[in-house]
Amino acid sequence: MAANGIGDEFDLIAKYLAPLAAGAPGALGLTDDAAILDVPAGQRVVAAVDTMVAGIHFLGDDPPGDIARKIIRVNLSDLAAMGARPLGLLLALVLPRDVTGDWMERFAAGLKADSEEFHAPLIGGDTVGSDGPLTLSLTALGAVPAGQVLTRGGALTGDAIYVTGTIGDGALGLGIAKGALKGLDQAQENYLVERYRRPRPRLEFGVRLLGHAHAAIDVSDGLIADLGHICTCSGVGARLVAQAVPLSNAAQAALRLDQGKLADLLTGGDDYELLFTAPPENDAALRAIASDLAVDVTRIGSITDGGGLEVDDGDGLGLKLENGGYRHFRRG
Amino acid sequence: MAANGIGDEFDLIAKYLAPLAAGAPGALGLTDDAAILDVPAGQRVVAAVDTMVAGIHFLGDDPPGDIARKIIRVNLSDLAAMGARPLGLLLALVLPRDVTGDWMERFAAGLKADSEEFHAPLIGGDTVGSDGPLTLSLTALGAVPAGQVLTRGGALTGDAIYVTGTIGDGALGLGIAKGALKGLDQAQENYLVERYRRPRPRLEFGVRLLGHAHAAIDVSDGLIADLGHICTCSGVGARLVAQAVPLSNAAQAALRLDQGKLADLLTGGDDYELLFTAPPENDAALRAIASDLAVDVTRIGSITDGGGLEVDDGDGLGLKLENGGYRHFRRG
Repeated sequence: MAANGIGDEFDLIAKYLAPLAAGAPGALGLTDDAAILDVPAGQRVVAAVDTMVAGIHFLGDDPPGDIARKIIRVNLSDLAAMGARPLGLLLALVLPRDVTGDWMERFAAGLKADSEEFHAPLIGGDTVGSDGPLTLSLTALGAVPAGQVLTRGGALTGDAIYVTGTIGDGALGLGIAKGALKGLDQAQENYLVERYRRPRPRLEFGVRLLGHAHAAIDVSDGLIADLGHICTCSGVGARLVAQAVPLSNAAQAALRLDQGKLADLLTGGDDYELLFTAPPENDAALRAIASDLAVDVTRIGSITDGGGLEVDDGDGLGLKLENGGYRHFRRG
Repeated sequence: MAANGIGDEFDLIAKYLAPLAAGAPGALGLTDDAAILDVPAGQRVVAAVDTMVAGIHFLGDDPPGDIARKIIRVNLSDLAAMGARPLGLLLALVLPRDVTGDWMERFAAGLKADSEEFHAPLIGGDTVGSDGPLTLSLTALGAVPAGQVLTRGGALTGDAIYVTGTIGDGALGLGIAKGALKGLDQAQENYLVERYRRPRPRLEFGVRLLGHAHAAIDVSDGLIADLGHICTCSGVGARLVAQAVPLSNAAQAALRLDQGKLADLLTGGDDYELLFTAPPENDAALRAIASDLAVDVTRIGSITDGGGLEVDDGDGLGLKLENGGYRHFRRG
C-alpha cells in the first residue's frame, strides 16, 4: 500500500519479509492479501494481538532485532497463558519514511530468529509508510485442544497460586535501559536488560499446564494487576504472600540498594512469566512438569472466596500497593 | 497498555468495544489477552491484515463510523477473494491523545454496524495511546472448505477474466472527497463517495465462486495492478479489453467530463470488487450465481500463455498505462 525511502511495499516484502515465510506454504510467499492456515483436527484457534509504538512501548534506539523479537515474544506469551501452540504470525508494520535498509535487515533478522526458535512462521501482514512513529502490530495465531483451553476466568476458591521464573526483572531492566537505575554490576545490568528486551514466552510450560491448572495469565501488566485480572474474571479473591514471590539474584541486589522497591517489582510489568492457579492436590504433578522443563515454579499464595486481593507483606517492607494503578486490591 | 484523554485501556474497551463482542463467546468479553475461535470441521483458516493511517489511507475528518467500516470492509474483501466466510475480527487501535468520547462512540457504532451486517464479531484487539496519527490495524479471520480455497495463483491459459460490479468508482470517490473532481451532479457525487467510503465486500459471491473459478483477487491496488498480481502468481499472461470494463453511470459521466480519465479508472485502487478467472465453460454457471445474488459480472478479457499483460484499448482512448506504477505490463 505504501512507498517509502527504501522501496515500495512489494520490494520491501519480497526482500526482507518473504524469506521468513519460506517454511509456511499457507503464507503463499506473502504474495497474497491473506494467508491460509490448517488447524489440527479437534483443536481451537487462539488469537492474540499486541501493538507497540516507538517511544511508548520501546525506546527509539533499541536494537531493531530486539524490537522484532519483543513483539513476537509478548504475543506468544499470550498464547502460552492459554496453553496454545503457535501456528503463525501476521505483522502490520507502519514504517517512518526515514527507515533505512540496514534497519530493515536487522529487524528482519530478529523476526527470523524468533520465528524459527518458537516455530511461529510469518504468514502474512501489511506494510505501510507514515510520517508518524514506528508502529508494530502483531497477531499471533495458535491452536489448543478443544475443551482444554486455559483462561484467566477459571480460578476456584482454595486453588494455589503459582508463578514461573522470577518477577520484577522486566521493570528493573527497563529502568536500566532508561538510565534510571544505577549501582548494579555489569553482569546484573546485562541480565536485567536482556530480561526486559527478550522475555521468554513459556510456551511449552503453558501446553503442559493443560489439565493441571484452572486459570492462567501472563504477567504483562504487573504481578498484582494480573492476579487482579484472574480474580475479576473468576469471581474470586486472592491472598498473595509478598515474601514468597521469586526474585532473581540481580533483582535481590537491586532491592538491597533500595528496600522500598519490592512494591515496584510486584506492580511492574513486562515479566511475561506465567501466573496460574491449580488445586493444591496437583502440586506434585506441577513440580514434575517444572523439573522436566527446567522452569522454576513457585507457590505465592491462594485463591480465596471473594474479598478482593489481599497482600501479606510480612514485616512491612514498605509496599505502597495502593499506588499501583491496579484494581480489586485492598491491603492485607 | 495505555492511558489517554478518555480513560485507560480497560475503561475504553469495557465502554465502547466489549458490547461488540457480546455475541461471540470466544471473545471472552474482550477481557483476556487472546480470543478463542472454533473452526468448522474440514475447513481451513484464512487470515488477512490491513493497516490504515490517518492522512494516508483515510482523511482525518472522515466520519469515524466510516473509518471503522472501511477497514472492516477492506479486510473482508480479502477474505471474499479467497472464498472464505468471516469468523471474527481483531482490532489494533493506536489512538491520538486528543481523541474524544464522541469520536469513540461514533467509531464503535460503525464497527458494530458492519460487524453485525457481515457476521464478523469483534473477538479481540489491543488499544494504545500515542502522539502519532490515528492508526488502525485489523486482522480478519475466516474459514474456507479445505481443498477449495481460491488464490491469485490458480489462473490457467484460456481462462476468461471477469470482474464484479463496476470499476473506478473508488478512485473517483476519493477525488470528490478531496475536492479534486468537480462537475458531477450531487447524486453522482454521493454515489461515488459512498463507493469510496463504504465498499461492499463480495463475501457471498466469493463463497459461491468456489469450485467455479481458478483464481481470484480483490481490486484494491487497481484493476491493472491486481490483474498483474494474478498473472505473476499464476505464471500466465492476460489480455484485457479496456472497453469491456464495466463503469457505473456516475463514472461514465465523469469520463464524459474528461475522456483522459479511463486509464485512471483502470489503475485506480479502492474498488474492492472481485477480479477472477474461470474456464469459459463455466460461464453459464457464473451468470446463474450472479443472477442469484443480484451482482453484476462482466467478462473483460482472457488469460494468455505468458507474455505479460496486454491491454486492448480499442480506438485509443488515451490510456497512459505505462505511468500506472503496476508491473508486468506492456501496451497491446
